[in-house]
Amino acid sequence: MPGFQRMTAPAGKWPEDVGIVAIEVYFPSQYVDQTELEKFDGASAGKYTIGLGQKKMGFCSDREDINSLCLTVVQNLMERNQLPFDAIGRLEVGTETIIDKSKSVKTVLMQLFEDSGNTDLEGIDTTNACYGGTAALFNALSWVESSAWDGRYALVIAGDIAVYATGSARPTGGAGAVAMLVGPHAPLVIERGLRSSHMQHVYDFYKPDMSSEYPRVDGKLSIQCYLGALDKCYQRYLAKAEAALQNAGEACQLTVDAFDGFCFHSPYCKLVQKSLARLVLNDFLRDPSADTTEGSRYAGTEQFRNVKLEDTFFDKAVEKAFMAASKEVFSEKTQPSLLLASMVGNMYTPSLYGCLVSYLASVPLDQLANKRIALFSYGSGLASSMYSIRVSSDNSAGLPLAKLRASVDDLEARLESRRCVEPGAFADTMKLREDTHHLAKYTPQGSITDLFPGTWYLTYVDEMHRRQYNRSPVSQQISADQSSQIIEDTVKETKTEEDMETGNAEAVSAQ
Amino acid sequence: MPGFQRMTAPAGKWPEDVGIVAIEVYFPSQYVDQTELEKFDGASAGKYTIGLGQKKMGFCSDREDINSLCLTVVQNLMERNQLPFDAIGRLEVGTETIIDKSKSVKTVLMQLFEDSGNTDLEGIDTTNACYGGTAALFNALSWVESSAWDGRYALVIAGDIAVYATGSARPTGGAGAVAMLVGPHAPLVIERGLRSSHMQHVYDFYKPDMSSEYPRVDGKLSIQCYLGALDKCYQRYLAKAEAALQNAGEACQLTVDAFDGFCFHSPYCKLVQKSLARLVLNDFLRDPSADTTEGSRYAGTEQFRNVKLEDTFFDKAVEKAFMAASKEVFSEKTQPSLLLASMVGNMYTPSLYGCLVSYLASVPLDQLANKRIALFSYGSGLASSMYSIRVSSDNSAGLPLAKLRASVDDLEARLESRRCVEPGAFADTMKLREDTHHLAKYTPQGSITDLFPGTWYLTYVDEMHRRQYNRSPVSQQISADQSSQIIEDTVKETKTEEDMETGNAEAVSAQ
Repeated sequence: MPGFQRMTAPAGKWPEDVGIVAIEVYFPSQYVDQTELEKFDGASAGKYTIGLGQKKMGFCSDREDINSLCLTVVQNLMERNQLPFDAIGRLEVGTETIIDKSKSVKTVLMQLFEDSGNTDLEGIDTTNACYGGTAALFNALSWVESSAWDGRYALVIAGDIAVYATGSARPTGGAGAVAMLVGPHAPLVIERGLRSSHMQHVYDFYKPDMSSEYPRVDGKLSIQCYLGALDKCYQRYLAKAEAALQNAGEACQLTVDAFDGFCFHSPYCKLVQKSLARLVLNDFLRDPSADTTEGSRYAGTEQFRNVKLEDTFFDKAVEKAFMAASKEVFSEKTQPSLLLASMVGNMYTPSLYGCLVSYLASVPLDQLANKRIALFSYGSGLASSMYSIRVSSDNSAGLPLAKLRASVDDLEARLESRRCVEPGAFADTMKLREDTHHLAKYTPQGSITDLFPGTWYLTYVDEMHRRQYNRSPVSQQISADQSSQIIEDTVKETKTEEDMETGNAEAVSAQ
Repeated sequence: MPGFQRMTAPAGKWPEDVGIVAIEVYFPSQYVDQTELEKFDGASAGKYTIGLGQKKMGFCSDREDINSLCLTVVQNLMERNQLPFDAIGRLEVGTETIIDKSKSVKTVLMQLFEDSGNTDLEGIDTTNACYGGTAALFNALSWVESSAWDGRYALVIAGDIAVYATGSARPTGGAGAVAMLVGPHAPLVIERGLRSSHMQHVYDFYKPDMSSEYPRVDGKLSIQCYLGALDKCYQRYLAKAEAALQNAGEACQLTVDAFDGFCFHSPYCKLVQKSLARLVLNDFLRDPSADTTEGSRYAGTEQFRNVKLEDTFFDKAVEKAFMAASKEVFSEKTQPSLLLASMVGNMYTPSLYGCLVSYLASVPLDQLANKRIALFSYGSGLASSMYSIRVSSDNSAGLPLAKLRASVDDLEARLESRRCVEPGAFADTMKLREDTHHLAKYTPQGSITDLFPGTWYLTYVDEMHRRQYNRSPVSQQISADQSSQIIEDTVKETKTEEDMETGNAEAVSAQ
């Protein structure tokens, strides 16, 4: 068999413009209002809504689990984009909602591919707290650039159910899933060579109690770890970008001005605002000649010229000064990304990608072309990365960017169509999950009539813990026209809360 | 910032000969003898040793967990190859031994990198039963070929503790970890374009009881799934290889003769022998003109010319005929890979890579060059892939292949240096793990004096479930000369058991 010696592929090249071709988000059809939850919990008024920056929190009954969330978002993405299931060559799930220590969510999703006969899909599940979706995305991007790529799309899923025991962390929950189609000629191109990471051993947020859905949290440590990782990732990203500029003969020092948008992993919105302030603090400390005169960005920060980053994680004076210094940048470049984070809550792995969806849905198509968006992914434990997306330059109708933008146009309308549940009923649902999430055999009790059309739900767990699902009937998609007005109202409303702060760093986490 | 628009890397090419540069295996320093276990369990003589093909089973006391296993194998690999910790740019762990639903083993391993200051390492943990190591390897290979590669090595870890409740599956346990250094110019090159997968939703082996270390097993279904996945992966691999040959103008039909070695995921050795027979059955059914005359490979199989693969999973007549037809191929190409599988047992994710190490250690360096090895990876649930390794052609002293071969030369001596534990003490240890593996706070009771030198072990789990570790003193490595004689003896001994079969497909699994 002489030919077999030389049948492997010749040295190949990376395809052009590899990135996110399509994106789909799913969140539960029910939520609890954070103002009502403050009252119900006996918390001070504004503690959740202003201190944490949260408005509504999505949650699941016992009808939904990590498998059903991912089934729903995958099928919705395929249907919305009219993609055949054999167009997918890789499928990987990032999650920290572990309901089986061995069997991956990916294998459960293979049920959707059965009719197509397509079983040749690489990828399984990947886990480290809220970072799993980013790891899955990076793996998919590498696959498309590698010799293993077979010309088909990769599908990246991030999904989680974020729930906390009763107490001050409970309002930082949420639930949802995001699916991303990855391939070449993408409208959202992941920039090559501009990726930085920081990984560290730490017990800030973790889930060692295998029989519980709830995490162990050292909230203050978690925030310190998050901000410290952000510092390191930002510095490393800028170092790589500046080195590349220097190689191109255009040496300069970069700042937040190099980006049009910033998306962060969003445990709660107030931490995101502090994070953007943190980047401006980094910019300031990197520039010994930074202008601090009245009217300049850094006005009022002169006294902090010699602070050390590692001393400022909980320095209220520094925080206040740089929240002020970054206020405009935040409003313009980060606030548009916080729609889902404030209206659904922390979705864990999908959180960052919910921010990306929110950003895309909040910026009109004609302003979206050519934008550069920085993304910071954080998972406790810890794993963190920063990278950037360049939006394609052509927003013509019928081209990928316009299609992608149109696909998220119904986001606000979908959020508004949800059902508000009283805090008491929410607490009962949490208790029901506590008592039943691990049971076999078990028939879920939650209503199925209130689910969004096209939602997969759990019908039965048999005595061998085998899970069975069904899907609610699919209806018409909400049209784009219905949603456009609602977006602007919500963005305005969010802005009024910027300077208020009653959050409790000990109680909630940056997970 | 005009230059920032064009600072991303130009279209790049894949580096040459990407694959496994170095490999390290760790297994526990204690084992239970399977003949003694048969007596202790009241099983019929030969049930474990001949029916399953197992000789000894490695196991861990409460001093070892998935974190400690991986810490040990990583540090051992780095020390044996005198690698600095900042030479690693990616680190990913494949495991199904989940002791935290959120915090990855990868983050625990970051402790080893602290002194180097290297925290910029992509990759987290990846899970689907025994397939996680393969997924991590594929991700690492893609990373090296991608624009994200920064010129450093990737490190891939597969580790697990495989334990079963008392009963007939218990002798199919094992424990261990394998670390693989991945990069270009490798002595073990992963062949490009020759990778096939089969993924499917099935409950054959899974771990839905989050509070237990033990799996749920449908043993018979598991074996059917394993063999069915093997059929599909082999057929798809051959189709890709034959298409590549046709493109090169050298069309031909490939068989097992195209490979010099076969490594399989090895739940127990008898299943591996059946798997090799299965490949020969596939070859036979793909060739309508296959020669079945006396003295030919397929002698005695004429009556099976029209069988369908899907009807033969438990057909004893077909199995016997093709075990006979494949006997020589098995002895030459697969038996050398079963040293660790028979002497340690099923290590889950590291199982396949333990077979690769065994193969490398069993074939003399001067016969190793240019060998082509097929690898079949299987994880219940299910995820499976087949791919191939081409061993580099230059076995000169000082070059990568010779170094790699020298690094596994002590394998037999290390296996022989283990401590044999009575079945009663083994059962006590299993009970101790059952009772304590989830406890906090907890001080492990197991001896630390019997651990191999350089073994990380658990010292304490505090009330917050935070785990602390220490490392046993490092001694001299066992020299290569000590081990060479032992290898041949063991291979001879294994061969005598080939045709005996008393296994029970219902009780044990192909996981």
